[in-house]
Amino acid sequence: MALTNPINPVNPLPMGPWKITVYDQEYFQGKRMEFTACCQNIMECGMENILFPKPGGLGMGFQEELILHSSFCGQQFVLEKGDYPRFEAYSGSNSYRIERMISFRPICSAYHKESRMTIYEKENMIGRQFELSDDYPSLQAMGWFNNEVGSMLIQSGAFVCYQFPGYRGHQYILESDCHGGEYKCYREFGSHSQTPQIQSIRRIQH
Amino acid sequence: MALTNPINPVNPLPMGPWKITVYDQEYFQGKRMEFTACCQNIMECGMENILFPKPGGLGMGFQEELILHSSFCGQQFVLEKGDYPRFEAYSGSNSYRIERMISFRPICSAYHKESRMTIYEKENMIGRQFELSDDYPSLQAMGWFNNEVGSMLIQSGAFVCYQFPGYRGHQYILESDCHGGEYKCYREFGSHSQTPQIQSIRRIQH
Repeated sequence: MALTNPINPVNPLPMGPWKITVYDQEYFQGKRMEFTACCQNIMECGMENILFPKPGGLGMGFQEELILHSSFCGQQFVLEKGDYPRFEAYSGSNSYRIERMISFRPICSAYHKESRMTIYEKENMIGRQFELSDDYPSLQAMGWFNNEVGSMLIQSGAFVCYQFPGYRGHQYILESDCHGGEYKCYREFGSHSQTPQIQSIRRIQH
Repeated sequence: MALTNPINPVNPLPMGPWKITVYDQEYFQGKRMEFTACCQNIMECGMENILFPKPGGLGMGFQEELILHSSFCGQQFVLEKGDYPRFEAYSGSNSYRIERMISFRPICSAYHKESRMTIYEKENMIGRQFELSDDYPSLQAMGWFNNEVGSMLIQSGAFVCYQFPGYRGHQYILESDCHGGEYKCYREFGSHSQTPQIQSIRRIQH
């Protein structure tokens, strides 16, 4: 039975014509809930178990890119529109198996007309640098000298950065609208980040 | 100690200025071998265990995109230039844990100037269709009506097709130079394919 969650008045992010349907069992079985606004804590809505999202939309131009946060390890996952029947479908490789997805929100920065960022060799935006406004399945193939990035500045839009080439491994979602777009060291890439290893980067765009 | 494998005279694929270094232990430890040509069977070269590749190159313009094939499940993995310290680093999500990587070769189709393909609703290139010449982290966000693709025609270049959105799940490498670029049903997507579920597609390009 579908339940619609009202807008959270404490956190007035845009509601737009988007929705996500979550299930507490694999393959879209079990208890189901629909959301059309971000959700700070799924637990408060009565969902206790693993969530299997099915991002969808009510029409054209909806915000289908979402971020899902887990409660235990602080992992982030970007979700594009489509079906994710199992945990592994959205977690990608190298993720900690977790029991709970705690919150999700749309990526508002993805609405900017363009996506532009700069990667730096060292922390605090110093050292060698390179400006990106495209997708790079391999930073080293582009000419970056290393398998690490010291710091990043997101001038416009939103990007997903990955630990390994080919968009694999831990993913970090970086946005121009979050703390001024500045990510001064690897600890700021995401709450689960443990190394500065970044080997592929792509844009999140509508 | 690095050993260089000579060109396999039975399979005269271009040798070009590229190389891959493989290790039989995680984190680039253990026995190491370098290859500058494709390899039909790693076992013949004395490597028996899990391989951890480190694709690299000797200069600009090398063929850094490789395909790795596993021996047991027929899985394919595309490797861009960079470091893959563990199996999960190149396997992505939803892969069968395997003990052996049996062969690898460069993706020659990736040298075409452009990448262009058509996806079809049904097998044998019929039904609704859509032409792609870009990267699509979500086919449904682009307007495709389904989480499946019946058949595909690769007119030019090479693509990786994924089971889930955001380039996750099983990956299938499709090339214009392989059997005329025609993939008439899901069983032809790859020897490990079990469903027609395809939700994201991206180009493989130099």
